[in-house]
Amino acid sequence: MKTLGIDPGYDRIGIAVLEKKQNGKEVRLFSECFMTDRVKNIHERIFSIAERLDTIIEKYKPNRFAIETIFHTKNTKTVIGVSEARGVIIYIASKHKLSIQEYTPNQIKNATTGYGKATKEQVYSMVTRLVTLPKNLKQDDEIDAIAIAITDLAHVKNL
Amino acid sequence: MKTLGIDPGYDRIGIAVLEKKQNGKEVRLFSECFMTDRVKNIHERIFSIAERLDTIIEKYKPNRFAIETIFHTKNTKTVIGVSEARGVIIYIASKHKLSIQEYTPNQIKNATTGYGKATKEQVYSMVTRLVTLPKNLKQDDEIDAIAIAITDLAHVKNL
Repeated sequence: MKTLGIDPGYDRIGIAVLEKKQNGKEVRLFSECFMTDRVKNIHERIFSIAERLDTIIEKYKPNRFAIETIFHTKNTKTVIGVSEARGVIIYIASKHKLSIQEYTPNQIKNATTGYGKATKEQVYSMVTRLVTLPKNLKQDDEIDAIAIAITDLAHVKNL
Repeated sequence: MKTLGIDPGYDRIGIAVLEKKQNGKEVRLFSECFMTDRVKNIHERIFSIAERLDTIIEKYKPNRFAIETIFHTKNTKTVIGVSEARGVIIYIASKHKLSIQEYTPNQIKNATTGYGKATKEQVYSMVTRLVTLPKNLKQDDEIDAIAIAITDLAHVKNL
């Protein structure tokens, strides 16, 4: 069972592919913080995200797809851009016929730490204990994507 | 010169293909108000819009693509859904390598009526004078899409 976890955005996008082995252990197959070219317009940037996801899905062939739910925020302009990117990201997953799941921040905190009101630091600390990560991994968005993928694998009952 | 005009949404989407003839006259090749299935979830609905646009672009082969700019509104939930749909719609246009243009409501009013503060009724009245429409056309979203396509053709300088 392989899942693709996404921390959505149009500027920085966390991408992670995790596999749940038969012994129940999660293994990181791939992760990155993909950054789009700020010189380009938003639609060219979103297009580059779509192409990147196509490549990753074709390479790692996940069965499932998980993304964080967007909530209301005060900055409507950011909401519009992130939602446009999110729509395209989910469309690419649909096109590849992946099973699509959405998780709230509370569900992600719960699945990684057992506590729905955990801090970002507590989530990161648990992520590094659950999954072996590369030493140079410093990008928040990448760790967030791994946390989303862990959450999704925790919701898979039958392997 | 053919342009595809879109009034974006995830529930009702106005779609219009107009052609500018060598005599400068705009001709409606196709228009509809495409409605998605309310029983399905938003991502299935957006996927059906993408498939519909693929079919229309392949059939009418427009050179250009025009869509209305989204502005801030008080209803963030609607903004998220419409933005997700809008992102996918623009992605499909990019995939087909169409030239993408965005117009504000004021630009659309100006191009159709010559007056940036025109009412919806004034815009509709001018649209029916500029383009021959089917008699049974009653959907606002469809007329809005035709108005956007007219606006785009008005911005093409060299034919």
